[in-house]
Amino acid sequence: MSLDLVMNHATFRKAWRFEAFAEACAAAGMSRVSIWGDEVDRIGLKAAAQSLHDAGLTAFGYNRAGPFLAATPDAQSEKLAATMVEIDKAAELGADHVLVFPGGLAPYQKGLAGLRHQLADTLVPLLEHARSCGVSLALEPLHPMLAGDRSPLCTLAEANALCDALGDGIGIVVDTYHVWWDPAVEQQIELAGASGRILGFHVNDWLIPTSHLLTDRGMMGDGIIDLAHFWGKVREAGYQGPIEVEIFSEHWWARDPDMVLQTALRRCRAIFDDRQGDSQ
Amino acid sequence: MSLDLVMNHATFRKAWRFEAFAEACAAAGMSRVSIWGDEVDRIGLKAAAQSLHDAGLTAFGYNRAGPFLAATPDAQSEKLAATMVEIDKAAELGADHVLVFPGGLAPYQKGLAGLRHQLADTLVPLLEHARSCGVSLALEPLHPMLAGDRSPLCTLAEANALCDALGDGIGIVVDTYHVWWDPAVEQQIELAGASGRILGFHVNDWLIPTSHLLTDRGMMGDGIIDLAHFWGKVREAGYQGPIEVEIFSEHWWARDPDMVLQTALRRCRAIFDDRQGDSQ
Repeated sequence: MSLDLVMNHATFRKAWRFEAFAEACAAAGMSRVSIWGDEVDRIGLKAAAQSLHDAGLTAFGYNRAGPFLAATPDAQSEKLAATMVEIDKAAELGADHVLVFPGGLAPYQKGLAGLRHQLADTLVPLLEHARSCGVSLALEPLHPMLAGDRSPLCTLAEANALCDALGDGIGIVVDTYHVWWDPAVEQQIELAGASGRILGFHVNDWLIPTSHLLTDRGMMGDGIIDLAHFWGKVREAGYQGPIEVEIFSEHWWARDPDMVLQTALRRCRAIFDDRQGDSQ
Repeated sequence: MSLDLVMNHATFRKAWRFEAFAEACAAAGMSRVSIWGDEVDRIGLKAAAQSLHDAGLTAFGYNRAGPFLAATPDAQSEKLAATMVEIDKAAELGADHVLVFPGGLAPYQKGLAGLRHQLADTLVPLLEHARSCGVSLALEPLHPMLAGDRSPLCTLAEANALCDALGDGIGIVVDTYHVWWDPAVEQQIELAGASGRILGFHVNDWLIPTSHLLTDRGMMGDGIIDLAHFWGKVREAGYQGPIEVEIFSEHWWARDPDMVLQTALRRCRAIFDDRQGDSQ
């Protein structure tokens, strides 16, 4: 069994537009891609669907449902409507799941606890809509350094609690970059797996030093995250999906995308491919 | 009752050497300062003690015990010995507590879980030494974005668990910058307070955007942390110590230190001084 890999378009977003990205992934032998709504908009939904079809690909993760948290009811309604449209697009493209991206605190001044309640409340109509479209929502805890402006959801424990409260149709994406530091990460992966709600496993690496809070993620193997350890944990927890490469990095965006893709594939094989270990 | 404030020398570290810092704090009416071992070394222990004495000040926090985590037994022994010397210096200067600074993962490759065990083990002899000197150790959870190279201790929950395991002579410093994002922060402050182990309360602010992981902390009021909320929580939990201003910031380091000091005092009064509310 060869390693099941998925590339997230964000990893190549400055070099490849939608079609070029899809063609490159197909040429490298992959069967799924994770995509972004803004790139879909650039060519139109129909052309995006055609591009996936022509390349023999299906959509795995769709980015993204959000940002939808807002300071006023009017702004909230407007953002919710826009978010529903993204969920519709994900469903039309047959995506496996839509990444929930709440948005952050600023310029609100209500505190994180209030924002977390608002997130829980707002997920109810979003999930109802997603269910009616037949697409899953995926909660992805983001690193606490992004709590201020990207998402109040910082830990797998909160994501598990939200899933418990919300019921079917919503699960969790485990991104190693965001959760590797958490003392409870192994326990919460196990919990998420026991409920069959791990929808994706994102890899990249934490660099020392890290020069930017958003765009200095590392290529797998260049940082200090014990990626093989976390891959073992999600598999032990019952996850049978692919490994998704998502690297936000000015460094890698500036490089030849074919080289970046080959580097990512090679690193993933070196770190995650345990055929020698498992099948002998 | 006027607001009890302490300045941490780090806030002014590029502008004021030890004596100038002490004199400025005394002139502003404060009775305690938080100091750094490297600044003490610059003038010598005796001169530092004299400087505090002349200014009518006592030492509150002493930075720092560490880094002491190391990859090999030899390196570990060497670092432990150096850390003991820092604890001795803190005791000789009559500091209230010494900040524990474990150091980080790189270039070790043992994973955070292993490093957390190593931290727990290493605190035993350090605490024994601190007790024999009559000075308290203070665990300060650092922001998870610093887990890679500064400290594996990321949450108040871990700090409380370590204190529970270690017994007397060790407590916790709550730095708003490091813990404000944590969904369990209020609960863990309450727990720490119930055991009488909150030794300090550090303030600063989280800026949007934040441009650097170490040196872009904000002046109180310039960011999004609900500082008054957290001050209320530590007081409800029984903390009766001062508010300590600790701002690592290239922006503020480049400014006139008298202006920075006055700004910090003014902001603290605006945010934390509740004389109108409490006593009328």
